[in-house]
Amino acid sequence: MTVEQAPAPAGGRAAWAREVERAFAKAPERAAARRTPSGLPREPLYAPAAADAAFEARVGWPGEPPFLRGVQATMYRGRLWTMRQYAGFGTPAQTNARFKTLLEAGQTGLSVAFDLPTQIGYDSDAGVALGEVGKVGVPISTIDDMEELLEGIPLDRVSISMTINASAVVLLALVVAVARRRGLAPDALRGTIQNDILKEYIARGTFRFPIAPSMRLVTDTFRYAAAAMPRWNPISISGYHIREAGSTAPQELAFTFADAVAYVEAARAAGLDPDLFMPQLSFFFAAHSDLLEETAKFRAARRLWASLARDRLGAKDPASWRCRFHVQTGGVTLTARQPQVNVVRVALQALSAVLGGCQSLHTNGMDEALSLPTEASALLALRTQQVIAYESGAADTIDPLGGSWAVEAMTDQVEAEARRLLERIDAAGGMVAAIEAGLPQGLIQRAAYEHQQAVERGDRVVVGVNRFQVDDEAAPAPFRVDEAIAAERTARLAAFRAARDPAAVARHLDGLAAAARAPGAPLVEPIVAAVLDRVTLGEIMGTLAGVFGEYEGADHY
Amino acid sequence: MTVEQAPAPAGGRAAWAREVERAFAKAPERAAARRTPSGLPREPLYAPAAADAAFEARVGWPGEPPFLRGVQATMYRGRLWTMRQYAGFGTPAQTNARFKTLLEAGQTGLSVAFDLPTQIGYDSDAGVALGEVGKVGVPISTIDDMEELLEGIPLDRVSISMTINASAVVLLALVVAVARRRGLAPDALRGTIQNDILKEYIARGTFRFPIAPSMRLVTDTFRYAAAAMPRWNPISISGYHIREAGSTAPQELAFTFADAVAYVEAARAAGLDPDLFMPQLSFFFAAHSDLLEETAKFRAARRLWASLARDRLGAKDPASWRCRFHVQTGGVTLTARQPQVNVVRVALQALSAVLGGCQSLHTNGMDEALSLPTEASALLALRTQQVIAYESGAADTIDPLGGSWAVEAMTDQVEAEARRLLERIDAAGGMVAAIEAGLPQGLIQRAAYEHQQAVERGDRVVVGVNRFQVDDEAAPAPFRVDEAIAAERTARLAAFRAARDPAAVARHLDGLAAAARAPGAPLVEPIVAAVLDRVTLGEIMGTLAGVFGEYEGADHY
Repeated sequence: MTVEQAPAPAGGRAAWAREVERAFAKAPERAAARRTPSGLPREPLYAPAAADAAFEARVGWPGEPPFLRGVQATMYRGRLWTMRQYAGFGTPAQTNARFKTLLEAGQTGLSVAFDLPTQIGYDSDAGVALGEVGKVGVPISTIDDMEELLEGIPLDRVSISMTINASAVVLLALVVAVARRRGLAPDALRGTIQNDILKEYIARGTFRFPIAPSMRLVTDTFRYAAAAMPRWNPISISGYHIREAGSTAPQELAFTFADAVAYVEAARAAGLDPDLFMPQLSFFFAAHSDLLEETAKFRAARRLWASLARDRLGAKDPASWRCRFHVQTGGVTLTARQPQVNVVRVALQALSAVLGGCQSLHTNGMDEALSLPTEASALLALRTQQVIAYESGAADTIDPLGGSWAVEAMTDQVEAEARRLLERIDAAGGMVAAIEAGLPQGLIQRAAYEHQQAVERGDRVVVGVNRFQVDDEAAPAPFRVDEAIAAERTARLAAFRAARDPAAVARHLDGLAAAARAPGAPLVEPIVAAVLDRVTLGEIMGTLAGVFGEYEGADHY
Repeated sequence: MTVEQAPAPAGGRAAWAREVERAFAKAPERAAARRTPSGLPREPLYAPAAADAAFEARVGWPGEPPFLRGVQATMYRGRLWTMRQYAGFGTPAQTNARFKTLLEAGQTGLSVAFDLPTQIGYDSDAGVALGEVGKVGVPISTIDDMEELLEGIPLDRVSISMTINASAVVLLALVVAVARRRGLAPDALRGTIQNDILKEYIARGTFRFPIAPSMRLVTDTFRYAAAAMPRWNPISISGYHIREAGSTAPQELAFTFADAVAYVEAARAAGLDPDLFMPQLSFFFAAHSDLLEETAKFRAARRLWASLARDRLGAKDPASWRCRFHVQTGGVTLTARQPQVNVVRVALQALSAVLGGCQSLHTNGMDEALSLPTEASALLALRTQQVIAYESGAADTIDPLGGSWAVEAMTDQVEAEARRLLERIDAAGGMVAAIEAGLPQGLIQRAAYEHQQAVERGDRVVVGVNRFQVDDEAAPAPFRVDEAIAAERTARLAAFRAARDPAAVARHLDGLAAAARAPGAPLVEPIVAAVLDRVTLGEIMGTLAGVFGEYEGADHY
């Protein structure tokens, strides 16, 4: 169905105004937003004087369907987005120290990067982990590791996002277990697990099990979070990695939402009511360099998801229609040459995320094309968000580009193109079948190739790469992880295993295998119980692999 | 008169479309602009489907009155703005080397910073110049200095902007004289002299003569440029320094245009037809940090000036109504603490200038709060413009924020407030009287004080200053000019004076004094003749001061 056919939502400006009042009663309006630096009054929202039916259907009001102008009525006029810098390297203690530096510097949420062994479900002392421990993220194998990672972090006040997919259920269980050790129930926790396994098959590659049992794990976390963790997002359906693999902006939206449709349908097939879990779905997009196209994309995402959730997936609760999303600036847009220019790229990309109404934001460090970000570059990236938040005024009025003839036209254009791609996925039998047939992968590959060709021909200028190069650049010293970490981790794991009850471990793993064999049996609860009794990530994932099998071609790195 | 009362301009979309065709025939459309990075088609301009009379009067079409959406029909879809980095320090040869570095790196126009002695009209060997030679800009005392400064620069292809006011007529004469030595007539030259003396009395302080003779010099350059230099802007009426002194955005517009009105009225009083010289007037504004307010300000500037030029100043030629302007990012917004954060500020400010449709742009170096910019920071500042131009897409569609409910409302708001301030100036008897009474100075001071108070109270956050500070910052090494330069300059000037005909010098200075005493006599021509015969800047300015007197309180630095 086209946007024009969408029924006009009830409410309109009056409903919005009521909701604004309610929201400001809970979280007060930011007083500084009320006047420009020149002292001119600044409204929370600008809209046409006369809002007709077409406006209500296509644009509408923040916090009201179709959510084009934002998922909350007050957006940043109340609370700013969560500044959430992705970090993780070396050891849990090193990463904990970086977290504290970032929180001290004004970061408002945490985002954990895990190393590859952890992502795929191997302990740091597994043979296959060799050479990868602590490299691209932090290694977490045990409850003690997770405790060290979160030491001094108030889990009921700071939200924690974890980029983890194949082994997401285990990492979720580890957080729940650490909270329990501290006397906190799961419903006090705020955070997100990425847990978006389909995009791993499309674009990112850190899968472990075949698709069907992977979908079962995802569905089980939906069930668990709906019941026990109302403030937690059990999934962050991610276009980011699709975009990083070379997709266009409409492909990013289309394939992300196709994945989302597949998850919701799988959960419905497992007997869950969409309105039970859909309000807890969250999304994750990239912010690339084209300011208007990206802003338009974020706006289009909300309108498109509202329509899919309501009309296609049958959700009745408007809370199920809201596309809440995290944004990260585009890693692939950074250049290894003249890395300071990346500060400019990141600033403009982050601006598009804010103009587009993101809920949380990671700004890349300027050296991320070369290595892990140093502390200095991670801090400068955070400062970038703070300048946008506190100095640029971009956060002071809701959906500031709304009504721009160019931005509204591009919003329609991106949405229409994404809908066209969704129809192709449907024609291929849905996303799981389309992935198995290589359809999204092929389309992404073609887009990436065309971009590369345009850069090579010079039709697309990348500053410092195909124009404005400099010859004699001093290479900055890359930030690298200490190679001694793997040995230290192996010793710690040996000590950890020595201090536990082997019979309890065996009992947990046997029970888990039995649950995995029983179709539809809960899995989160037995995994929480296991990690509390010092069963490791690798042992749990190995047990599940024994039942589920491994995805073909899954011999990683 | 209010905007609503403005007569609808003839032409509309059809006139715009014809002009686009003509413009692209001369300077082809940038092919890369036609598609977004995702391959979606991108129009040169987005506008409402049905343009009614209110739209035509208030918004209209690029290149057509009221010029809200841009002074040219094709804007950056044809040619990008001129990337013009302000530079000057040490000696003419050092500055020439910096110019060549910047041109090599992709800069497209020059902008000369002069040292204080040159700005006020003293040679480098004058006693009063001691300690200031080559400090904040390049010292230029003689035709040989100017030749060295412009060595290897093709004066008929690279435009040259000179930030010079009290002594602007002499620097203009020096460029004309160097061109003549190279066999180039003045009509081949492209560039700008700032030559905006009124704002010196308001905000910047490098005046020399009383207001009336200063206005005569300005008027004389209008006459000369209209007759002999059709591609030269004989003035750049500058809000930049008014803003730097602490004004608000509407004050910046109002006081700049009040100055402009005073210049036009002075030129009319001297017998010049407004349509003869007004197409050569240019403007200079600051880009501060509030993205929407600044974009709105640039748009409002064009509509307001079109109205003033036509309705108040009686210009008949639409070319006289066009507010063409240079932009510099806001020097006072830079912080000495955490200077790398300035890269972010400059990027966002520069973006507002591009979204606002500037004709040329200087982006500040991140270290300009500490010292002159180093070569590395000047290059990064240029790269900032290049990323906006080639990667952000902000240049690919005309007036991309046009139609935004927020931006249109703020455009109206800034214009209305500027008009209110213009009425206050009028009530005070016009700008010259208002300046003599201290009216604009007082209003700017109050605005600056209120901003300072808001920062001290913490109501306005400045990242790194009143929030998000760091304690143990390593101070970067400031870039300083070699103290030996003054002695070298003195020796060169002695040699220069030794190699000339003293009788010719005396004859030129006598003639110039006689011309200065004769009301309305041309001054540019005798000054060009004098500098060709090796008369120095200081000698010419001293002779003029002998006739005109010095402005009270003019014992500078």
